[in-house]
Amino acid sequence: MSLPIELVPLATVVGGRVENGDDRWAEVEAEIVLADHVPDGALVGLEAFSHLEVIVLLDRAVDPGHSEAERRPRGIAELDPVGVLAQRHKDRIGRIGLSRCELISVAPRSVSVRGLDAIDQTPVLDMKPWFAAFGPRGDVREPAWVSVVTRDYF
Amino acid sequence: MSLPIELVPLATVVGGRVENGDDRWAEVEAEIVLADHVPDGALVGLEAFSHLEVIVLLDRAVDPGHSEAERRPRGIAELDPVGVLAQRHKDRIGRIGLSRCELISVAPRSVSVRGLDAIDQTPVLDMKPWFAAFGPRGDVREPAWVSVVTRDYF
Repeated sequence: MSLPIELVPLATVVGGRVENGDDRWAEVEAEIVLADHVPDGALVGLEAFSHLEVIVLLDRAVDPGHSEAERRPRGIAELDPVGVLAQRHKDRIGRIGLSRCELISVAPRSVSVRGLDAIDQTPVLDMKPWFAAFGPRGDVREPAWVSVVTRDYF
Repeated sequence: MSLPIELVPLATVVGGRVENGDDRWAEVEAEIVLADHVPDGALVGLEAFSHLEVIVLLDRAVDPGHSEAERRPRGIAELDPVGVLAQRHKDRIGRIGLSRCELISVAPRSVSVRGLDAIDQTPVLDMKPWFAAFGPRGDVREPAWVSVVTRDYF
């Protein structure tokens, strides 16, 4: 299936950074404010969780489309090129971002969060509480370049 | 922002279950097959990772829209109602699903995975390698009902 689908963002990131930066997101605080079509009560019980997963449209990133299949992580000359779907760079096909952040507090129609790497006015496609049982199962393995690009991210 | 946005799925789940089931996803195997518009090479280097995060459109789930703000997890009468955005039920506003799964092998235009809780022909909006450093930071806390609904999920 490659027909376009239509999605209505259910919230917006408000506050935090107004320009992107590659690093040091851990202390950035922002609000996730619900869109009008989301019913009151949708956040009831969310305060019992410590962390959220947030799926956003990275609307100010660049979608490379067909034009770029591989790229050196962060453009670092010493690293081998890696496929665009084998890394997490924001300039990606479809421009969907996914992050975990800390939940600070919950209001009836907004959530305060810390460490969400999405800038002010970013559309939020979905948010889900983090379930420990839904983390990766079994031993985790990743290539060495990941520690280079994530070193100062949070 | 609540204008609809258009997204083109970049892959499709092929195989695995053809009907939904709430539990025992751990051993389900399926392929994630790239859409034609994704360039060759997009998966280069992915085989160095043990786990993927997969964002899907749950196209056979029911979007409750405005009609339901809270719901008892899995309909269990003993549990208190919880907001639709404070749980991970598939019948959710926007119908976006998010899972971690094990990566079995990578072919030029497809990935074999184990434990992906999405049925055959589910559109894939994005996939990202799991970075250990991007997991939840700090102590994780979740309410007791989560262990009830996740007990046999994987």
